[in-house]
Amino acid sequence: MAASTARIDSEVDVLIIGAGPAGLMCANALAHAGVQVRVVDQRPKKVAAGQADGIQPRTIEVLQSYGLAERLIREGNQMHMAAFYNPSPKGGIERIDRAPDVTAPTARFPFEITLHQGAIEAIFLDSLRTKGVEIDRPIQPTAIELSTNEEELKDPHSHPIKVDLKRLDAEPGHNDTETVRAKYVLGADGAHSWVRKTLGITMDGEQTEYIWGVVDTIPVTNFPDIRNRCAIHSNNGSCMVIPREGDMVRLYLQLAEKDVVTDGRVDKSKISPEKLMAVAKKSLYPYEITFPNQIDWWTIYIIGQRVASKFSVHERIFIAGDACHTHSPKAGQGMNASMNDTHNLAWKLTHVLRGWASPDLLKTYEFERRKYAQDLIAFDKEFSRLFSGKPRTEENQDGVSHEQFLQAFQTFGGFTSGIGIHYAPSVLTNTTHETVATNLTVGMRMPPQVVVRAADARPYELQDLLPADTRYKVLIFAGDITEEGQRTKVQALEKEMGRPEGFLKKYTPDGAPRDAIFDVLSICVGKKETINFTDVPELFRTHWSKVLVDDVEIKGINGGKAYESYGILKDGALVIVRPDGYIGMVAPLDKVSDVDTYFKGILKAAR
Amino acid sequence: MAASTARIDSEVDVLIIGAGPAGLMCANALAHAGVQVRVVDQRPKKVAAGQADGIQPRTIEVLQSYGLAERLIREGNQMHMAAFYNPSPKGGIERIDRAPDVTAPTARFPFEITLHQGAIEAIFLDSLRTKGVEIDRPIQPTAIELSTNEEELKDPHSHPIKVDLKRLDAEPGHNDTETVRAKYVLGADGAHSWVRKTLGITMDGEQTEYIWGVVDTIPVTNFPDIRNRCAIHSNNGSCMVIPREGDMVRLYLQLAEKDVVTDGRVDKSKISPEKLMAVAKKSLYPYEITFPNQIDWWTIYIIGQRVASKFSVHERIFIAGDACHTHSPKAGQGMNASMNDTHNLAWKLTHVLRGWASPDLLKTYEFERRKYAQDLIAFDKEFSRLFSGKPRTEENQDGVSHEQFLQAFQTFGGFTSGIGIHYAPSVLTNTTHETVATNLTVGMRMPPQVVVRAADARPYELQDLLPADTRYKVLIFAGDITEEGQRTKVQALEKEMGRPEGFLKKYTPDGAPRDAIFDVLSICVGKKETINFTDVPELFRTHWSKVLVDDVEIKGINGGKAYESYGILKDGALVIVRPDGYIGMVAPLDKVSDVDTYFKGILKAAR
Repeated sequence: MAASTARIDSEVDVLIIGAGPAGLMCANALAHAGVQVRVVDQRPKKVAAGQADGIQPRTIEVLQSYGLAERLIREGNQMHMAAFYNPSPKGGIERIDRAPDVTAPTARFPFEITLHQGAIEAIFLDSLRTKGVEIDRPIQPTAIELSTNEEELKDPHSHPIKVDLKRLDAEPGHNDTETVRAKYVLGADGAHSWVRKTLGITMDGEQTEYIWGVVDTIPVTNFPDIRNRCAIHSNNGSCMVIPREGDMVRLYLQLAEKDVVTDGRVDKSKISPEKLMAVAKKSLYPYEITFPNQIDWWTIYIIGQRVASKFSVHERIFIAGDACHTHSPKAGQGMNASMNDTHNLAWKLTHVLRGWASPDLLKTYEFERRKYAQDLIAFDKEFSRLFSGKPRTEENQDGVSHEQFLQAFQTFGGFTSGIGIHYAPSVLTNTTHETVATNLTVGMRMPPQVVVRAADARPYELQDLLPADTRYKVLIFAGDITEEGQRTKVQALEKEMGRPEGFLKKYTPDGAPRDAIFDVLSICVGKKETINFTDVPELFRTHWSKVLVDDVEIKGINGGKAYESYGILKDGALVIVRPDGYIGMVAPLDKVSDVDTYFKGILKAAR
Repeated sequence: MAASTARIDSEVDVLIIGAGPAGLMCANALAHAGVQVRVVDQRPKKVAAGQADGIQPRTIEVLQSYGLAERLIREGNQMHMAAFYNPSPKGGIERIDRAPDVTAPTARFPFEITLHQGAIEAIFLDSLRTKGVEIDRPIQPTAIELSTNEEELKDPHSHPIKVDLKRLDAEPGHNDTETVRAKYVLGADGAHSWVRKTLGITMDGEQTEYIWGVVDTIPVTNFPDIRNRCAIHSNNGSCMVIPREGDMVRLYLQLAEKDVVTDGRVDKSKISPEKLMAVAKKSLYPYEITFPNQIDWWTIYIIGQRVASKFSVHERIFIAGDACHTHSPKAGQGMNASMNDTHNLAWKLTHVLRGWASPDLLKTYEFERRKYAQDLIAFDKEFSRLFSGKPRTEENQDGVSHEQFLQAFQTFGGFTSGIGIHYAPSVLTNTTHETVATNLTVGMRMPPQVVVRAADARPYELQDLLPADTRYKVLIFAGDITEEGQRTKVQALEKEMGRPEGFLKKYTPDGAPRDAIFDVLSICVGKKETINFTDVPELFRTHWSKVLVDDVEIKGINGGKAYESYGILKDGALVIVRPDGYIGMVAPLDKVSDVDTYFKGILKAAR
């Protein structure tokens, strides 16, 4: 669709269409990185209730890396435990088992958070406000056009995209249209994405046969697992209980096709919250559940499982979130996949816009996130099949047994928690020396560990020292530098890394602080009672806070296991963590040249 | 001094004179309890720099109980480690040892926080603002008068105090005086307290011979312990290093009398920050320290060690904080003692004002806090002597050895951390059945323990379930109620506690929520995988969140040690925690009648 030829009303570096979780995550990351960003949304205000509500452990880590997790954890409900119910021989259901809701052993936050989407969006909106960014709404895009001029497309400083916008609440007689020129556009405009459709990007995949109803309310019940995530296989249909903030509970209820489908289409008029509550009462029998309180939100849907055929046009216009993947909401992946899409994209856009990286870096967005979305659909198919299938009973030996279901639940734990996300080898993920840290995986996120700050013995979660601040983190596992042989190695490392042509200096612009692009942290083997932070070579400490020791904290409970848990030997290692918290490369201390090569593939020399 | 006989301009329940830590702690507690409070201060604005800055572990717990610790911890510096330096045989100083800064094993926060007083006050000011309370300043009290009418003094609803106030910034020609009638007055107006002097309350104690200088700045140094608390005994005088927020450091420097005293009085004109920095350079030799940055604050002082002869007049006018005790700042007790004074007082005032308790309850304020202040002075004398004394060296065998100093540092750990505060037996602290929980001490604060919520397996710090919300907490350590004998006992307990004449019902006003005065929590023996919160008798769960289990959390690291660490056997116990977090009574499950008796001594029957 061609944009109007009317005058250009404004220019912006990044125009984001859609202020849902994907759009807001991107906007927040860009705004805090100092990138000029504008966010438009066609809804007059943010979501008030219902919709997506589950935040996975990895997403909590990501939000923590932006300083946003504290409020999320305070406001949200935490799901630590899952309970499994099956049909009882006595009729009704009985509890078969309880198991941790999260089965990713390295998860820093071993729980999921549930909180309604509006509250989650509010966290982003408040954070954006501190940077002067407000969502512009209600505004609808009406046309988008990408320049076909090769030169313009190659120039990262050009504005090759024109978007026509229409203000939906303009006073009669006032101009309600506007044309924006943008360097980059993000379509984060949901499952029915206008951006995707307008660009002609197809969705690959299909609709399932499973039909579900959802209802959010505060029940009164003697069901002992009402505050746990429950997977209930009953002969009256499957049901999932998701406790929410306060005393609210979300119930997912499997519906029979005959009750909801008219002429092959889901017919919302055939169902009502009352009918959903009647299904819930049946499913939970012999437990009693009543619904004396207001229904906060409800809906019905058929699960669709689709992935967009591409995530970008010329790495100038991107789509993210529900615009590029739709799947079952029951594993709580939707909002998480969406936010992690743009967490992956935002720092790359920032680096290109700053001139630190070549625009080719942006190709890794689709490479990394589309594969993830495909894996997500594959998982979702299997999980939905197990969950929506009939339970195994004496009469139905072909049904799904609890053991099958629990095994799937736990096998997929790394995936559903988001902890297991693993980006394949690319320019950003160099596996050459991966074996130097036997328990770290290049392409996966840097796992949490408590370390102790050498200067003041204060314990820190290492992840908190790797914030999403657009910088690469260079972790020097320096070993025990009071030991002479190791000290010599570390001194050699300092010399090597201090060369003008080494990556530390080569990519740091003249006049910029020496930690502008690379934040160097040392993690020593030693004891907090004897280590002196002043013994670490000066190049590795831009500040006294940058020297850490792998020791237990004062109370003796946490810490002291970083080398062991990462599988790093006492002769040390270099670990490069990408700005998004994923491991980019691991190398021995004497292979700085390979790290130079890694960055040569990504960064543009400052001189 | 008689108040003016002019018309009464206003009435208030509690008038607080002085908006330092003691006054603000009181105001915040009262305001959040819904008590009408007014705070006046003669300073035109809050403290900007310097002054008291150390927050002890117990004070952090107390602030946490008001929901204020999170910001304090975020903004402040944490001191985890102490380093000890002595004269080196090679000249200058050398490190003898490092040891944990806090030596109270049960401290929930095993560190001290340093943050300038203005930032701490800001936390209270923001919290007060949420309740519509602003500090009224600059206002000076000019007269105070307490009624001598016995009837009026006995009536908790009377306003027997008249205070004349003078507004210091009134426009010329405008009325700048006002008379306030108050039910209660708190003098939290510092070491030179106008309230104390006007009431003729004397200070007992004396001035020491120790003279110290203090300077706050950001040094540049190769001293490896610049971010730890350091006790430095050098032949050039003793010095204490206290790291502060950001890169700031506070140095306490012992001064020679000849350098600062003129005609027997400290003469600030004889000293300067430059002179203090020169002393610091000498004391830290052979380490280098320079002071290229601005001096944030500095002062000199002679340590005075005094306690007010009484803390109240007729339990209508109270003094708190520096107004009733002055001592060495080096052990960082000042602000802590002040805030804990009014933490002790505020809930008692609230209970009396609400009509829950007789005014006699207020006598326990002086009883508990004056004894503490006396203990503080005794400790301070010993600590100052050791710290200001000459170090033991080859030449000076009479000096203080490191072993002596470290032993004192650790022996006093319970005291300096605030964790060891122990209120003597009184109407509020009943030790009859103390042996039922062998590791709990009636009169000490309820120690922290991680417990798991039965309904959702979420771990909680038990202290966080005991907020300073003016309610007594009734902790029912119910044992294993799946075991039949124990279940029978707990059912008997429910029956006993449910009697109309039992404490639960007797003191709860008609129409008030059943948890208005007593918040009941059950802590069961069991496993999170099998416990059902619905199995606990209904009387003990006003909400699903009130049932806890003494089990490890999902990760298996914390929790599961409450019974063991409190010394409670599996047959259970009742623990009554006062609204300020201190243990009021412990009893076996079958001695509810003794708990009834305990509350009879404190509370007034609602009917």
